Amino acid sequence: MRNIYLESTPLNEALNRWIEKLEHEKLLSPFKGETVKVIDSFGRVTAEPISAKISSPFYHSSAMDGYAVKFTETFGASERTPKRLLIGKQAIYVDTGDPLPQGFNAVIMIEDVNHISDREIEIISPATPWQHVRVIGEDIVATELILPENQKIRAFDIGAMLAGGYTEINVRRKPEIVIIPTGDEIVEPGCQLKIGNIIEFNSRILGSLVQEWGGKYHRYNIVPDKLEKIKEAILDAVSKSDMVIVNAGSSAGSEDFTAEAIRKLGEVILHGVNIKPGKPVILGIVKGKPVLGIPGYPVSAYLTFKLFAKPVILKWLGIGEEKYETIKTRISRQIASQPGQEEFVRVKIGKVGDNFISTPISRGAGVLMSLVRADGILRIPSMSEGIGAGSEVDIELMRPLSDIENTIVCIGSHDNALDLLSNILKKRYPKYSLSSAHVGSMGGLIAIKKGEAHLAGTHLLDEETGQYNITFIKKILGSEKVVLINLVYREQGLLVLKGNPKNIKDFKDLIRDDVVFVNRQSGAGTRLLADKCLKELGIDPGNIKGYEREEYTHMGVASAVLTGVADTGLAILASARALNLDFIPVAKERYDLLMTRKVFESKMMQCLIEIIIKDNEFKEAVKNLGGYDISDMGKIVFEN
Amino acid sequence: MRNIYLESTPLNEALNRWIEKLEHEKLLSPFKGETVKVIDSFGRVTAEPISAKISSPFYHSSAMDGYAVKFTETFGASERTPKRLLIGKQAIYVDTGDPLPQGFNAVIMIEDVNHISDREIEIISPATPWQHVRVIGEDIVATELILPENQKIRAFDIGAMLAGGYTEINVRRKPEIVIIPTGDEIVEPGCQLKIGNIIEFNSRILGSLVQEWGGKYHRYNIVPDKLEKIKEAILDAVSKSDMVIVNAGSSAGSEDFTAEAIRKLGEVILHGVNIKPGKPVILGIVKGKPVLGIPGYPVSAYLTFKLFAKPVILKWLGIGEEKYETIKTRISRQIASQPGQEEFVRVKIGKVGDNFISTPISRGAGVLMSLVRADGILRIPSMSEGIGAGSEVDIELMRPLSDIENTIVCIGSHDNALDLLSNILKKRYPKYSLSSAHVGSMGGLIAIKKGEAHLAGTHLLDEETGQYNITFIKKILGSEKVVLINLVYREQGLLVLKGNPKNIKDFKDLIRDDVVFVNRQSGAGTRLLADKCLKELGIDPGNIKGYEREEYTHMGVASAVLTGVADTGLAILASARALNLDFIPVAKERYDLLMTRKVFESKMMQCLIEIIIKDNEFKEAVKNLGGYDISDMGKIVFEN
Repeated sequence: MRNIYLESTPLNEALNRWIEKLEHEKLLSPFKGETVKVIDSFGRVTAEPISAKISSPFYHSSAMDGYAVKFTETFGASERTPKRLLIGKQAIYVDTGDPLPQGFNAVIMIEDVNHISDREIEIISPATPWQHVRVIGEDIVATELILPENQKIRAFDIGAMLAGGYTEINVRRKPEIVIIPTGDEIVEPGCQLKIGNIIEFNSRILGSLVQEWGGKYHRYNIVPDKLEKIKEAILDAVSKSDMVIVNAGSSAGSEDFTAEAIRKLGEVILHGVNIKPGKPVILGIVKGKPVLGIPGYPVSAYLTFKLFAKPVILKWLGIGEEKYETIKTRISRQIASQPGQEEFVRVKIGKVGDNFISTPISRGAGVLMSLVRADGILRIPSMSEGIGAGSEVDIELMRPLSDIENTIVCIGSHDNALDLLSNILKKRYPKYSLSSAHVGSMGGLIAIKKGEAHLAGTHLLDEETGQYNITFIKKILGSEKVVLINLVYREQGLLVLKGNPKNIKDFKDLIRDDVVFVNRQSGAGTRLLADKCLKELGIDPGNIKGYEREEYTHMGVASAVLTGVADTGLAILASARALNLDFIPVAKERYDLLMTRKVFESKMMQCLIEIIIKDNEFKEAVKNLGGYDISDMGKIVFEN
Repeated sequence: MRNIYLESTPLNEALNRWIEKLEHEKLLSPFKGETVKVIDSFGRVTAEPISAKISSPFYHSSAMDGYAVKFTETFGASERTPKRLLIGKQAIYVDTGDPLPQGFNAVIMIEDVNHISDREIEIISPATPWQHVRVIGEDIVATELILPENQKIRAFDIGAMLAGGYTEINVRRKPEIVIIPTGDEIVEPGCQLKIGNIIEFNSRILGSLVQEWGGKYHRYNIVPDKLEKIKEAILDAVSKSDMVIVNAGSSAGSEDFTAEAIRKLGEVILHGVNIKPGKPVILGIVKGKPVLGIPGYPVSAYLTFKLFAKPVILKWLGIGEEKYETIKTRISRQIASQPGQEEFVRVKIGKVGDNFISTPISRGAGVLMSLVRADGILRIPSMSEGIGAGSEVDIELMRPLSDIENTIVCIGSHDNALDLLSNILKKRYPKYSLSSAHVGSMGGLIAIKKGEAHLAGTHLLDEETGQYNITFIKKILGSEKVVLINLVYREQGLLVLKGNPKNIKDFKDLIRDDVVFVNRQSGAGTRLLADKCLKELGIDPGNIKGYEREEYTHMGVASAVLTGVADTGLAILASARALNLDFIPVAKERYDLLMTRKVFESKMMQCLIEIIIKDNEFKEAVKNLGGYDISDMGKIVFEN
């Protein structure tokens, strides 16, 4: 029923075996060139050295507007003994770029000339030989190397090649990659979805990477999980391309035929690499073409494709692999890791003050959004058991450093209005971004204290005073200078399925046998609110089924209710609206944004605050979410 | 005859006036969207927020191959009290990705199951709720923001949008830029060249930049220097595009009509910015479209286009300007600069040991090769009079840092074989480059001493001992551990025009009245050789015309002779061959490569040395240059 187990080859060994095998089979030489017009060659790679056919300029030309002269005829000119030259004979007018008349060897700038008459000019200093002249070859000397072989062509390279007399050049042929999506459950994007279907999108991620690296891709139609069909597709593809990618069926399950197909048609060099995510990768050769089995989870697909396909494509193009920019950051949370496996953890990075802080995001191989949201990748070496909070770690960047420096890092309680704020900020100020991580209100306050965030959303109710946030801020941040701004008042309530099938009326129903609750994590303001309600009602949490299942966002709670994971949970009205759930109001609460005074005064934050205070599109959008009172939006509710 | 003089507006003021004026005219709003398929959207910019239409996954699915169970039915299972479950009723086989059957809420991995019979499995530990299940929305929750507006789309963003239920999206229309080349002297690349012609290539540099930034360009046919023709072209272009670039005619010469044309058709906002190069730029508006007059010198064109057109194009796309990566370097030579003018100096950068060293290259606005060769740009502020050698300066990078780190910096004497070596290195090892700067042999030794170069080409003859290089190395580098490798023996001689029209036979002819000499700079080995010959013959350099004109390379000397700037000069045979000159042999000399032992042992240098020692393609190419004896190529001639 199941295939043989995978290997667990360490990454470096796997890469070496792969590259050595391909080199041994002579499959890694740079591709021969194809002729393209120079004007269409941007981004292509030279397949020959480009040596200038002609010099530029190829004649002596004037570098200024003025008069061409013979420098010997200017000797002796001075303020006291000006010299006159006959126009048309001893001095010939030239514009910038004009060729120097035969026998002339200097130019006097128009500004340094006195026009005596139509026939004569006067000069008051001599010309030095070749002054203000662009001599032949000043820019490019014929036979000079303009670009070496294997050079990626930039904008000004195009100009230099044209100037050097080229109109066509030889560039490396683009590697052609066929991507074969496989799987009975896989369907085309846009088709009517049925339970069990998975939209095919990996091929488009991998294909876009191929294009980015300088190749072309061709995506085959989806092939069902049938060994013969997969073999057929691979055989066809190897005859039409330089490399074939099969996605997925690369594991060892009962419906995983990729390894068997490659083995029957050619050779499997390696099956299984000890990395996380991305373990079930297959490296093979069929009829002299590399064939890769790439895992189905999107993060695994992305990572393994970069690790094993990119070096091959770059070698074919004849270019070196660009090292990713790395920066040193402090990691904000502890990360445990399984020794013996090299792990690739996606992180968000924020620059708070002078420090770069990285925060791990979801580690699931199936969570594509972890790539969309990531700023960089942390590699945990295979011998490590993990990394302690506060440790300095190197991060490979996935976005330009300037983007990261222009990102407001918001860590704390989640509110749907933050998504709207993020979008409006990017709309109004394209250079800025707002990135949110959801760790609850208390976690947000701690992040501000530790200098790990610019902004924290918080709604912490002090049971004794009935006041929001301020008691907690004083307790955690002491005398630190901070500013607290109100974003919204919002309604919290119990979410239930449309029509409330289990007839839940309030917290007292949570102890019913047939009701499963979904909780928020401790430190969340919503969790405090729930615990306060239970305490007031004298309910023992131990009697609530699902009390121990914690979600990190309102939408997480809403999603759990919608999908039947739970019957009810406490969240804001906006999340109920978003997923079409019913809402049983419990309390109205204040949701504020906390920042240090220093951050408050930064340009980036002032742009954000301006939006909060007076952007009508933002205010309207928040109102439309439902359940929000925006009467104090942007008001400073506390500062010290 | 000449137009009014240009303004000298400081750069920041010019940029502010330009952007404020366009904003005031409401010409800078991001463009409306156009619909494209998601699969074709790589590199485009979102024109709307992309919120998920469906969750991913949109049903509970198994994260493992195994059995779906109801977790309540697994309670109590242990090694001592295993529990049996009926296949098909209590336990249903699922592959990774399969939907969970209705009512089931956990998965037990196949590895943790005992198959008792076709009907029953046995388990020895209970399942926790939802274990090994990808719950609905684990990756993307419906309504969740996948990408904000104004986001440049990356490979995995395409996957996330497809997963979120999109097949088409709205992206910003690509800005369309018309580029109008003007000038009577300008001709199409590839046509038969006549004296006075200039090949038109600026439009292709600027057009490639437009494409790189995310726009499209349309290049008009060359327009002659006629006011009416230029007006016609601009009028036509503004009706068909978003921005118009006129190149050049932007200065104030008698044939510069661009400013007048823009003024007659619309408004000139500014003419002349106080930067070098790039001063004569024109910023204007015609019929509601920005029109730029861009100077004709290619370096000026490139810089001003980036300064004034790029921010406009990026605002139309709705994206922020990516800050260039900058690094701190030590500048190897003094740079004088005119106060009051902001200057952009192109530099080469080398990493020698732990230090980044930048060396200014040609500052001429017409030297396009200064961009091709540059690693970065040094901005000298307008108030500065220059920068002292050894100062720390910030450089904006033009190439990835990893390319710079993989570049062998060769400073010293020039030999044509170095160009061949550079090309073969890039061919054999695409990640490595060899970059040469020519300052003469002595300058090379000093660069090695100061840690500014990895490699120095040197051919310094000690008159007393008749020995090459070693005396000088000991004098300048003291006891520093170095390795000296022979590259070639080569012939030096006097270059003269084909057929030797002035009948020059040897150095004695240099004092003739009708003979003009071209010299090499002091510190060059060839200069030492020339001075030695003159001394032996008892010739006073003061009697040689042109002795004070110094060139920095053999090709520079050859070019001066070919073009009549001089009648003769001392250089190697290869340079005579390259430009089809006659050659009068004077001496055979040894040309070596010097490096420190530490650099000698580096991987990068070992690759280079391997080529020198045994690459036959390289050896053949050097022999074909002519005048070289390669019998000791790669031999260590000195080490300590």
